Amino acid sequence: MTRSNQSTSRDVAARAGVSVATVSYVMNGRTDRRIPAETRERVLEAAEELAYAPNRSARSLRRRRTEQVCLVVGSIGVPAYDQLARDVHLRADEAGYGVITLVVDSAARAEKAVALLHQRIADGAVVAPSVPYLSEESLTGIARSGLPLVVMSNTAKPDGFDVVRAPEAAACTQALDHLFGSGRRRIAFMGHEHELDDDPLPSERLDAYLDALDRHGAPRDGSLIVRGANDRVAAYHAATGLLTREDRPDAIFAASGRGAVSAIWAARDADLSVPDDVAVLGSGNLPESLITRPTLSTVGPADADDFTEVARLLFDRISAGVPAEGREITDPWSYNHRGST
Amino acid sequence: MTRSNQSTSRDVAARAGVSVATVSYVMNGRTDRRIPAETRERVLEAAEELAYAPNRSARSLRRRRTEQVCLVVGSIGVPAYDQLARDVHLRADEAGYGVITLVVDSAARAEKAVALLHQRIADGAVVAPSVPYLSEESLTGIARSGLPLVVMSNTAKPDGFDVVRAPEAAACTQALDHLFGSGRRRIAFMGHEHELDDDPLPSERLDAYLDALDRHGAPRDGSLIVRGANDRVAAYHAATGLLTREDRPDAIFAASGRGAVSAIWAARDADLSVPDDVAVLGSGNLPESLITRPTLSTVGPADADDFTEVARLLFDRISAGVPAEGREITDPWSYNHRGST
Repeated sequence: MTRSNQSTSRDVAARAGVSVATVSYVMNGRTDRRIPAETRERVLEAAEELAYAPNRSARSLRRRRTEQVCLVVGSIGVPAYDQLARDVHLRADEAGYGVITLVVDSAARAEKAVALLHQRIADGAVVAPSVPYLSEESLTGIARSGLPLVVMSNTAKPDGFDVVRAPEAAACTQALDHLFGSGRRRIAFMGHEHELDDDPLPSERLDAYLDALDRHGAPRDGSLIVRGANDRVAAYHAATGLLTREDRPDAIFAASGRGAVSAIWAARDADLSVPDDVAVLGSGNLPESLITRPTLSTVGPADADDFTEVARLLFDRISAGVPAEGREITDPWSYNHRGST
Repeated sequence: MTRSNQSTSRDVAARAGVSVATVSYVMNGRTDRRIPAETRERVLEAAEELAYAPNRSARSLRRRRTEQVCLVVGSIGVPAYDQLARDVHLRADEAGYGVITLVVDSAARAEKAVALLHQRIADGAVVAPSVPYLSEESLTGIARSGLPLVVMSNTAKPDGFDVVRAPEAAACTQALDHLFGSGRRRIAFMGHEHELDDDPLPSERLDAYLDALDRHGAPRDGSLIVRGANDRVAAYHAATGLLTREDRPDAIFAASGRGAVSAIWAARDADLSVPDDVAVLGSGNLPESLITRPTLSTVGPADADDFTEVARLLFDRISAGVPAEGREITDPWSYNHRGST
């Protein structure tokens, strides 16, 4: 299909009141020259108004030059990222692409990651869940620069990138109501560092927990809110601490699967029966949930983790050549009731 | 310090019989033009003979342009890599560098990783242990191209890169002799896929196991050599399979820490006492070794994992500006005798 009156970069430059070179810089997402944000915005608006599309084959060549995709994860050693990493690597293999992984667990590392993506270290990127340091503004900036981007987030809004959501609140509420409904009165919460910091990040799990306490008339007892979800050893010690108290809790809701598995060990080592003496509820979809004794009840994805759809979205965007509208996929968590609750 | 008779790229070009441009390409490790390996070698030899050092500040500028280091790991979801990743990230933070992680678990991904390093995706790289697909030849090629490189390997020889060794055989032999010495006769081996494939990769652990069987006059029983070390669920099922046999083993040597932890669960769930009914020996330095009941005996690093020295070697090389001789650090494994053997 040819368009006789197709806009050129000259038209965009005239409308935005900038040079053709500036249009080229902005539209190709280059960052080796500083373009003020305001100018960049003006160019993008003019391009949109004029329905300007940079030469596709040239852009495609330029955009595919790395044959790499980038996977951005929120920390080191989180098993929840393993299957995502495997699925992205497999899809990349099929496409002849490599995968570059970046760990973003601080504001400084977020800044570096954003710079690398702007420098086109890769032809596209997936941002894993729980990467709170990447602001929505910087994600939008990356997408506007033309980088195909898929973001796994319950809060980000599609804006030139795709969003994959896994809302947690309803499943958490259902599980907690089940615990209260079966007679539990002292439910502990084992959180991640980032959930319980002085300056905590939003946590649907913790919010659902606090809300359930209030709805069921249970007191908010700060001594029942402990850290430990980040690693197995810390979780074991935290759970042992809870379970050897005189006023031990009758349930533990762990914000991770690792923490919940360690809580089951801790209960067994303290000669407590799960779930009779203490119920244990985990988060996520750790494969070990099925080999603990008893098996571990969790809030999390209903089926085994499968991120092939996330990888597909990314490679769809990459092969589309031109930026697509932001799409949104929602796959809510469910309460997977097993032996431990 | 000035040197009156310092060699120039012109001298090197004349001696090697190539153009000055070729000398520049080779000495700066560029790969955007194909230089035959033989020509590259001739230039490097001439540079060595003439003690030619490219302008340091220019090289430094060029070499530090990415402010990234690359961490190459052998697979996804291996906790043994977690502390290495943390230590490299921390040291990189201090130096104002970012970290790019590449997973190399196939020949195809190795090829991509080598290409990226040649393209200078980073200013230096650490290759983690157990990345068998990166040949020594390709490592030498990367180092020759001028990239600061630290390789964790028991077989690679320092050749323009540093090597960090952790020889395993002596510790494995000591642990296995202890098992036989305390009366064990049927010792099972739980290996990784790559150790037990049809085309297995060298494994000091498996070799030490087979050697110990022979030395102690125990038959090599193929049914006692099982897979499972790669992941916790597979290990649990493999151990359960072994421990519910009529002719169950009286010891399990797992080639990973995860596998050994799962074997302890499996023994408890099968109502067997560890170590009375079955001894369990793990590999590596998983922090959980200290919270299992009983605590887990392992062959592995004597102390908690600490890779700050590995990270230091890399940044030493990066800041040195000119290629240093290959250094070698050796830190042999030991037998960490705890409760499970």
